[in-house]
Amino acid sequence: MKKDLDKLVDYHVAGAGKGVAYRRTADFVDRYGHRFTGTENLERSIDHLESIVRQDGFNDVHFESVSVPRWVRGEERCVLLSPLVGNATKKLPMLGLGFSVGTGMEGITSDVVVVNSFEDLAMKSDKVRGKIVLFNFPWTKYGECTPYRYLGASFAAKYGAVAVLIRSLASFSLSTPHTGSMGYIKVEKIPSAAITAEDAAMLQRMQERGDKVVVQLHMSAQTLSNTPSRNTIVEIKGSKYPDEVVIVSGHIDSWDVGQGAIDDAGPSFVAYQVVKAVKDLGLKPKRTLRMIFWTAEEVGVVGGRQYYEDHKGEADKISMVIELDYSIFTATGASLRSDAPTLLVMRAVGESLARIGGSHVFADAGFTTSDMGRFVESHQIPALTVAQVPK
Amino acid sequence: MKKDLDKLVDYHVAGAGKGVAYRRTADFVDRYGHRFTGTENLERSIDHLESIVRQDGFNDVHFESVSVPRWVRGEERCVLLSPLVGNATKKLPMLGLGFSVGTGMEGITSDVVVVNSFEDLAMKSDKVRGKIVLFNFPWTKYGECTPYRYLGASFAAKYGAVAVLIRSLASFSLSTPHTGSMGYIKVEKIPSAAITAEDAAMLQRMQERGDKVVVQLHMSAQTLSNTPSRNTIVEIKGSKYPDEVVIVSGHIDSWDVGQGAIDDAGPSFVAYQVVKAVKDLGLKPKRTLRMIFWTAEEVGVVGGRQYYEDHKGEADKISMVIELDYSIFTATGASLRSDAPTLLVMRAVGESLARIGGSHVFADAGFTTSDMGRFVESHQIPALTVAQVPK
Repeated sequence: MKKDLDKLVDYHVAGAGKGVAYRRTADFVDRYGHRFTGTENLERSIDHLESIVRQDGFNDVHFESVSVPRWVRGEERCVLLSPLVGNATKKLPMLGLGFSVGTGMEGITSDVVVVNSFEDLAMKSDKVRGKIVLFNFPWTKYGECTPYRYLGASFAAKYGAVAVLIRSLASFSLSTPHTGSMGYIKVEKIPSAAITAEDAAMLQRMQERGDKVVVQLHMSAQTLSNTPSRNTIVEIKGSKYPDEVVIVSGHIDSWDVGQGAIDDAGPSFVAYQVVKAVKDLGLKPKRTLRMIFWTAEEVGVVGGRQYYEDHKGEADKISMVIELDYSIFTATGASLRSDAPTLLVMRAVGESLARIGGSHVFADAGFTTSDMGRFVESHQIPALTVAQVPK
Repeated sequence: MKKDLDKLVDYHVAGAGKGVAYRRTADFVDRYGHRFTGTENLERSIDHLESIVRQDGFNDVHFESVSVPRWVRGEERCVLLSPLVGNATKKLPMLGLGFSVGTGMEGITSDVVVVNSFEDLAMKSDKVRGKIVLFNFPWTKYGECTPYRYLGASFAAKYGAVAVLIRSLASFSLSTPHTGSMGYIKVEKIPSAAITAEDAAMLQRMQERGDKVVVQLHMSAQTLSNTPSRNTIVEIKGSKYPDEVVIVSGHIDSWDVGQGAIDDAGPSFVAYQVVKAVKDLGLKPKRTLRMIFWTAEEVGVVGGRQYYEDHKGEADKISMVIELDYSIFTATGASLRSDAPTLLVMRAVGESLARIGGSHVFADAGFTTSDMGRFVESHQIPALTVAQVPK
C-alpha cells in the first residue's frame, strides 16, 4: 500500500496529475459560467463533462435521471426610500433567496423592522404586521446562521410580515450579498431576499436613531415546473470485491450568480482525480471506485436525494463515501467520521502522506456531508473529506 | 502638558468624546450617501457640516471657494462576447475611471490583448492597434499599481489601442471593481475602466489557452464644465502665537460609488476631534489650530491645490500638518515626517499615550499626504498621521 500511495503522491506532486484539477476547473467555469439547475447551460456542461471523462479513457460512464425544480430569479431590486436627505434613494444590492415567491409587478413598499434573532422577532411581534422584517443576526458561522435564511420568511409570516430581508450569510459582503435556498413552513408565502452585511448594519443604525426606515422590494421570482437533469457516474470496477463500493463525489451545478468555481466545480474535479489517477497509474483497487458528479445540489440536494431513493437498498455495500463540497484550499489531511477501527486504518494511511503535509486524520464529530448525507446519517457509512486551512 | 494629554485621553476613552467621531461618521454617510465632486449632494453635506460645527459652538468657521471639475459616469457596462460556450455572454462588473472619455453610443467591440506590465505592453506593441488592452498587473500595493490606472490609457493609446481595461486596484474584488482618477498625457483620449481582479485573471487564462477574447465596452462618461465647491475651515486662535498654525484635515468628498465612510468621512471626523476636544475641555493652545475639511480630493486633490495657491505665502507660519486620509483602524501611535528635534518632542508626547496603546512615534520616510502634500513637499513642514493596524 505504501508503494501505491507513493505513486499517487508523485503523480500529483510532480507527474502528469500535477495541476490537472485546477486547470480543468478554470477551463470549465470560464467556458460555461454558472450552471444553475433548470438551465440549458447546466445540461450542456454535463455533456461536456461526459466528453472529458470519455477522453480520459473511461468507458464505464452513465447518467441517472433526476427531476429537478426550476426556480427563476427574474428581475429584482431593493431600494431604500427613507431616511435619506432630500429626495435621495439608495439602491441596496440584494439577491432573492432560492424558491422565494415574487412580489408582484407593483412590488412591496413598507416600513422595515430590524430584528437580531427569532427571540427578538417574537418580542417585536406586535410591530411587524404589514411590515418588512430584516433579520440582522450577529454573524457567527454559516451553519449557525442558515436558519434565518431558511426559516426567516416562515417565522415572520406567522406575525403578518409582508416580506423578509436577511443579512447576507458572510463575514462581510462589499456589494455582494449571498443567496441560498429557503422554504415555507405551512405559512403564507412571502418574498425573502438577502442584502449586504453592511447595509443590514446601516438599516439597524437608522432604526436605533429613531428614523423611519422604508424599503421598496421588487422580485419577479417564480417557481416553474420540474425539468430533467442527471447525475453523472464514472466507475472503476473492483478487482476482488466488485460489489463493494467506495463513492467519491462533488456537485456540478451552481447558483445563478457567480460561476461556482469553489462551490463546487473545483472540489468535484479534485474528487474526480481519485478515479483518474488510479486509472492513469494502472492501480487495481480491490473495491469498486465510483465517482458521482451530482446535479442540483444547491437547490435542495436534489441529485443526492434521488440517488438515495434509487440506491438505498445497496447501502450495506458502500464501504466509504468521500465528498468534497467545501472548497479546496491548503489540505492538511482528512476529516473522517467513522468507527474506531476505520479511524486506525485511515491514520496509518495518513502517515504515508506526511511528505505532502497531509498526514492528519481528524475524527470529526461535526462532519457533515451534503449529497451523501442520507447514506451517512441512516447507515453509519464511514465518511471522509479534505481537512484544510482556508485561505 | 502631561496633564492636558491626560484630559484629552480621558475625554475620548471614557468622557463626552467617546464614540463621537464614529457616530457622526455613521450618521453622515448614512444620510448623505456618496458626496461626489460636482453633485448637489456634496454641497448639501458641506452645509450640514457647517451646522454641526456651529452647533458645537465654533463661531470661527468659513468657506474658501474652489472651482471643481465635474465628471459624470453615466451609463456603463462591459460584456464578454467570446470565448464562451454557445451564444452565452457574460457581464463583467466594471467601473469607468474618473475623467475617462466615453465610448460613444455604439460602444467599442474589440479583441482584448492582456498585458502584465508597461514592458509587456511594449513587447506586444505590434498586436494592440485597434484592440482593447487589459493591464493585468501583479498586485503588490496601491501606490505601486496606481501608474496603471493613471497612465494605462495614455501608454496604450500610443500604440493605437482603442480602449483600456485595468485590473481593479485591490487585493481581491468579489464583484466590486475599484475606481479612481486617470489622466491623458498628450495622446488620443481612449476610454479606460477597471474590471475585477478575478475577471482580469479569467481573461488572462483565456488568452493563455489561445482563445479569442472579445469584449464590448459601453461608457457614456463625460467631463462637464467646472462647478463651485468649498473647503470648510474651523479655527481656534492661538493664545500666544496666533499667527502660527497647526493644520489638521481630512476630505469630505467621496467617489460616486460607495459612500466614502473610511475614505474619508471617518478620518475627517476623527481629525475634527482635535479642535472639538480642545474646545470642549477649555484647553488653550499657544498656536492656532485650524481644521480643514477639503473638497474634491478624489478627483485630483483639487481643494488642497487651491488652498496651496491661496496660502503658499503663509507656509513659514505653519508649524505642523496633520492629515488623515488613510482610514481609521486600531491606532498604535503616530507616523511622523519631520526633522530630528521635532521627532524628539513628539516621542515625548507619545509616551504620555502609552495607556491607550498609542505611544509609538514612527519616523516614516515613506510618509505621503494628499491635500497638504504641496506644503509638505515644498516647505519641509513636519507632517503627522495616525499609525495603525489595518483590520
